[in-house]
Amino acid sequence: MKIDGTHYRSIWFDESDHSVKIIDQTRLPHFFDVLSLICLDDVCHAISTMQVRGAPLIGAAAAFGLYLSIKKGDLPPEEAGTLLLATRPTAVNLQWALTRVLDRIGEESNSEAKIKAALATALAICEEDVSNCTSIGLHGVGLIRDIAKTKAGPVNILTHCNAGWLATVDRGTAMAPVYQAWEEGIEVHVWVDETRPRNQGASITAWELGKQAIPHTVISDNTGGHLMQSGQVDLCLVGSDRTTYRGNVCNKIGTYLKALAAYDNDVPFYVAVPVSSIDWDSDEIPIEERHSGEITSIQGLNSQGIMDTVRLTPEGSAALNYAFDITPSRLVSGLITEKGIFSADESGLASLRGLLNTD
Amino acid sequence: MKIDGTHYRSIWFDESDHSVKIIDQTRLPHFFDVLSLICLDDVCHAISTMQVRGAPLIGAAAAFGLYLSIKKGDLPPEEAGTLLLATRPTAVNLQWALTRVLDRIGEESNSEAKIKAALATALAICEEDVSNCTSIGLHGVGLIRDIAKTKAGPVNILTHCNAGWLATVDRGTAMAPVYQAWEEGIEVHVWVDETRPRNQGASITAWELGKQAIPHTVISDNTGGHLMQSGQVDLCLVGSDRTTYRGNVCNKIGTYLKALAAYDNDVPFYVAVPVSSIDWDSDEIPIEERHSGEITSIQGLNSQGIMDTVRLTPEGSAALNYAFDITPSRLVSGLITEKGIFSADESGLASLRGLLNTD
Repeated sequence: MKIDGTHYRSIWFDESDHSVKIIDQTRLPHFFDVLSLICLDDVCHAISTMQVRGAPLIGAAAAFGLYLSIKKGDLPPEEAGTLLLATRPTAVNLQWALTRVLDRIGEESNSEAKIKAALATALAICEEDVSNCTSIGLHGVGLIRDIAKTKAGPVNILTHCNAGWLATVDRGTAMAPVYQAWEEGIEVHVWVDETRPRNQGASITAWELGKQAIPHTVISDNTGGHLMQSGQVDLCLVGSDRTTYRGNVCNKIGTYLKALAAYDNDVPFYVAVPVSSIDWDSDEIPIEERHSGEITSIQGLNSQGIMDTVRLTPEGSAALNYAFDITPSRLVSGLITEKGIFSADESGLASLRGLLNTD
Repeated sequence: MKIDGTHYRSIWFDESDHSVKIIDQTRLPHFFDVLSLICLDDVCHAISTMQVRGAPLIGAAAAFGLYLSIKKGDLPPEEAGTLLLATRPTAVNLQWALTRVLDRIGEESNSEAKIKAALATALAICEEDVSNCTSIGLHGVGLIRDIAKTKAGPVNILTHCNAGWLATVDRGTAMAPVYQAWEEGIEVHVWVDETRPRNQGASITAWELGKQAIPHTVISDNTGGHLMQSGQVDLCLVGSDRTTYRGNVCNKIGTYLKALAAYDNDVPFYVAVPVSSIDWDSDEIPIEERHSGEITSIQGLNSQGIMDTVRLTPEGSAALNYAFDITPSRLVSGLITEKGIFSADESGLASLRGLLNTD
């Protein structure tokens, strides 16, 4: 998507110096910095510190991380994969992307060919991600279009966390239908949950939408229920880090609370799910617990224009920081995938799987 | 309650200089500052900037505000009351306390007697508040005691915002049963919702509980649903700024989302409701909208030990800041009042009212 008139992706391969370039998402929305990743450590650090985040994007980043490691030859590829997998436990894309690169390089016998294959696979993952996100947008826009026909004024869409283009390689998952609608001239307005503790909504989603000039309003995570009660939300659209074959959706902590409110107020609640984020094997989802410092402190821009961290809680008070929760399938109106919209249950996902197998 | 071994109330009359003393809650948890209020403007400012907050406490503060205004003779008492009432629209205690002082001074004919009556009424409101909160604690502790009997380890109680002693004159509403349980030797642990945007949980509830050495853990507002799904919450206890005769509960924004999660997971959800916060006449509740700056920025302690405000959102992104939401009575397990526990519906509240009329 565009930033001040120039098209960017969230991650790209720079042929001039064989580095992987990313936008440092820990500096948004205050500063726009592009970083060069040149080795496995750089990629592990970028994923674990959330310079890159979002299930599809960390899959792509991990694939590039394997490429950089294989090129340097510092570790057996499987060990590099293990290190990358440990950076974030919840997103299933990470494993999916690593397996794909490892399988592909396993087909090659010499190291030059393995390096080439790793890079080609990482690049293919990126291209497919853009294509899949575009398809999610095309499938999802129908929901927005249908609502727009029934009312005057904008379609009010609530989203949680960031499932926009910066969570993917480009275009986004939950925000892809919004971008599509906007480009088709459908009037939209997005309620952006700030999404504590890391504030991906307030910092990244708001920034993304602002750069495309899409009307949006940042709200505290506590606000969505009241907005739904008072008829100010037409549709909820969120992403997913892992969706199980039973239709249970793991996404940023707090998603479950919004799904409950949507259900209680008859607001449709759709989840954008690239096929790569579906766990076909298990209904068990490990919930990442992150550092409590993300609760006790927060980062922002001070009056001197410098990013600073301020403490919020008393010294001596403990804090707990689960990063994700699970929204039961019964609260999900549907799953928007690159293959179409499916019901969030075993039968819906089985239909999707059947479609994949016949592709 | 105690602060480092010394007993404090949240508001008190200082006979030495005829001022009203408060603890500046905007400086907690980082600094403990006592402020002197000497005129109506001071009190209006203290309420609107939330140096004092919490429905019972702002009722007491408003009563003292009328006293200070009448003593100074700067405005007709009714006009002073109108200014005080405008400081916060949602809490019904504010109106209740003002009406009580105005009615009482109306019984006096000379100004000396009016001043005395205003002060005596403000002091009486404070004493009754402490007594009522103590009774709420005694009625509510039974819920905690019953749970403690059924399990090993602490009773895990989730609370939202601050309904502790700093929201009242002393003892608290929702936290009164917790303090009572702790004093009776019942093992408790409190999940403290940070409560964006003003972070009354992270800053005030956590500080209060820490000063009484009660185990507690601060969590983001997004976390409670996951904790309830995973069996880590035994009881929700929250306060209320206004409860209608039908049992609908207005409390800090986000309360409704926790009530939905409690209902979905069979976790009892009780609301501590002093009788003074019940609206016997209407089921309509005005929802205060506060400044969007509370969403776009946040205050905390920087690394130099100075309280500073940092910006969270991009320049140009709008923000909306509703302060309260309404939890429908169907999601409330019961109302803990100073007269006992009542069902959150018209019949429960009618029983309570009957009890009041026979007092």
